[in-house]
Amino acid sequence: MNKPNIVILGAGYGGMMTTVKLQKSLGLNEAVLTLVNNNDYHYQTTWLHENAAGTLHHDRTRIPIKEVVNMNKVNFVLDTVVAIKPEEKKVKLKNGELSYDILVVALGFEAATFGIPGLTENAFTIGNINSARLIREHIEYNFAMYHNDSKKNQARLNIVIGGGGFTGIEFVGELANRIPELCKEYDIDKNLVRIINIEGSPAVLPGFDPQLVEYAMNSLEARGVEFITGALLKECKPASIVYEKDNKEVEIPTLTTIWAAGVRANSIVETSGFTTNRGKVEVRKDMRVPEYDDVFVLGDCALIMNPDTGCPFPPTAQIAIQESQTVAHNVKALIQGNDELESFEAKILGTVASLGANDAIGVILNNRKLFGFKATVMKKIIDNRYLLKLGGFSLLMRKGKFNIFY
Amino acid sequence: MNKPNIVILGAGYGGMMTTVKLQKSLGLNEAVLTLVNNNDYHYQTTWLHENAAGTLHHDRTRIPIKEVVNMNKVNFVLDTVVAIKPEEKKVKLKNGELSYDILVVALGFEAATFGIPGLTENAFTIGNINSARLIREHIEYNFAMYHNDSKKNQARLNIVIGGGGFTGIEFVGELANRIPELCKEYDIDKNLVRIINIEGSPAVLPGFDPQLVEYAMNSLEARGVEFITGALLKECKPASIVYEKDNKEVEIPTLTTIWAAGVRANSIVETSGFTTNRGKVEVRKDMRVPEYDDVFVLGDCALIMNPDTGCPFPPTAQIAIQESQTVAHNVKALIQGNDELESFEAKILGTVASLGANDAIGVILNNRKLFGFKATVMKKIIDNRYLLKLGGFSLLMRKGKFNIFY
Repeated sequence: MNKPNIVILGAGYGGMMTTVKLQKSLGLNEAVLTLVNNNDYHYQTTWLHENAAGTLHHDRTRIPIKEVVNMNKVNFVLDTVVAIKPEEKKVKLKNGELSYDILVVALGFEAATFGIPGLTENAFTIGNINSARLIREHIEYNFAMYHNDSKKNQARLNIVIGGGGFTGIEFVGELANRIPELCKEYDIDKNLVRIINIEGSPAVLPGFDPQLVEYAMNSLEARGVEFITGALLKECKPASIVYEKDNKEVEIPTLTTIWAAGVRANSIVETSGFTTNRGKVEVRKDMRVPEYDDVFVLGDCALIMNPDTGCPFPPTAQIAIQESQTVAHNVKALIQGNDELESFEAKILGTVASLGANDAIGVILNNRKLFGFKATVMKKIIDNRYLLKLGGFSLLMRKGKFNIFY
Repeated sequence: MNKPNIVILGAGYGGMMTTVKLQKSLGLNEAVLTLVNNNDYHYQTTWLHENAAGTLHHDRTRIPIKEVVNMNKVNFVLDTVVAIKPEEKKVKLKNGELSYDILVVALGFEAATFGIPGLTENAFTIGNINSARLIREHIEYNFAMYHNDSKKNQARLNIVIGGGGFTGIEFVGELANRIPELCKEYDIDKNLVRIINIEGSPAVLPGFDPQLVEYAMNSLEARGVEFITGALLKECKPASIVYEKDNKEVEIPTLTTIWAAGVRANSIVETSGFTTNRGKVEVRKDMRVPEYDDVFVLGDCALIMNPDTGCPFPPTAQIAIQESQTVAHNVKALIQGNDELESFEAKILGTVASLGANDAIGVILNNRKLFGFKATVMKKIIDNRYLLKLGGFSLLMRKGKFNIFY
């Protein structure tokens, strides 16, 4: 009865898919499977910007772990990982400790603020259910305060988004759709509200096709979004932000700054002593860390070079889900004493960025460009496909996105 | 073409009902009717506690003035009254000035804080649509912040209500019903939330029948409300309140204090030079101020002694609405050169205090006591009756309360 202990840390895209695949492929007598997470739910990080804007309720974004994981086959531990001790084959939790024979690290990302003064204290990030729902509340609160101040404060109506990457632009798209509703709710003139996106590169969505970027900017500007590109955030104060553009510093009064310009791997992988490259573990082809044969790392904590581009694969849900296939296969192989581990191979199926519920841009297989309605449909197909993979038809029916006509 | 100018200040219960009555009873050629208000809507002050608790949307509570007032017959001025100059027969507004031949002052109440330190800065009041909706947002915001603080802060979940009078108790009743919903929304353990009502008298709802008060306290305590009676609020700090009871000072950490223990007449009646008694104008039997024959005051700005009790009538919607009948009648008489003005006579039809949507207590005609379901129904009948009077059947259908079964 000496079954190996498989411990999976984190229930994001990578950790959840690994767990679900192993619970299907491993027999009950082959191994003990333990999943550790700091919430009793999984959430779709790629939907959080909608929760933050208030266009989608956060309960649509999260999925109770017990609805997807078979609790008869998997031990679930609700706790926070504090450290990994690979020499001792142990994981230190806030309220305890776990031993493992095989470890899967899928601890996701955290915000990176690059030492910009005031960001940690004064800006919000779209990192999890709690922080996303707080942004929604914070914006509503400032709108509600507007007519209660003896002197009207424009900083309550200026919303600054630092970063014009994927998250920043997707959030801006949702927010632009939400503002008219909020103005109605709080009796505020729509023309007073400013949504300001600040991006360091000369254009937003760096890396995207320039034609699609232009489409996206036009779509958002038509809904009142202002873009300040080629500008660097210098400081985030309690009631304003300062950016630098063309060697001049400009201050914008705002009580709402959302920092969407940087993520890094969960710092636990670095502090636990694995060799890291820009905070991530450069894993072997079989997704194991260089130093230990019993530790896998995937998702935002792992770094894999894309041989086609010479750059690392981006920290996306798509990559994390594909990696989980390799990890699950290789964990099973180790358990069964099979030394032939498979190598990770990415299949980039395309990338779609939403610009609100009714607009999107994207590039799919063979570099086909999409925008508008077709891209919106494609985005929802991607979202729904994940739900189907994770929890089957019943989960898709409960959490899927089917409202393609607006 | 020398038609007399009738100017009505304020679109609360008294001002609105006076306007609606005069627009019906006066011919277009008899007078020019002007209504001044600082919002383009009327609202039901007696429903604001529901908006503040978040159990009723504020758009149910407010009624656009143009939906009730015939804009072909009445000039509506959206402005704030700054001062009344009865010697010059003028009203100074923030953005202008109006002359009148007959003036009706119905400027309502403002919060009275009795000089308690910190109340003005740190406590909320349920005074209008803006302040009520802010309370709703403020509570939600603190619940949303709870899981975002690195150290959990109980002050976010403690809600203190200063005052166990009508408004305080009605608000507490709504809030007790709302908390379970809020806890679900923000993943907070219901048992951590405290609703604390602080009242200076030995029991809440002073003046109410003791049996009904006991019923009310039991109903609310069963829903988790804590009562601290015989206690005086000493100070409201940014993150706590201090009260004194039995000569001991106690501090409760809270970020949410709602002050519902005192209202006074709009201070404009005092600063405009009318003789006042505790801030109100002790009007003549015909509702005119003692010094001027062309100025009427009603509602919360007027003081009339109840001959049966020797005390002033309370500042209620019921009294204001009854006074508007006398004012409208007497304004019309003056216009028509009729010197026989009628005297105000109150008909107290009863008082019902709600304890949330599904419970209430009340005393109706002939001191009949009501509680529970019957009182709830009676409360809704009173609310609906006003809508019928103000805007007829169509307004009742749009804004009435018909959901008596919960």
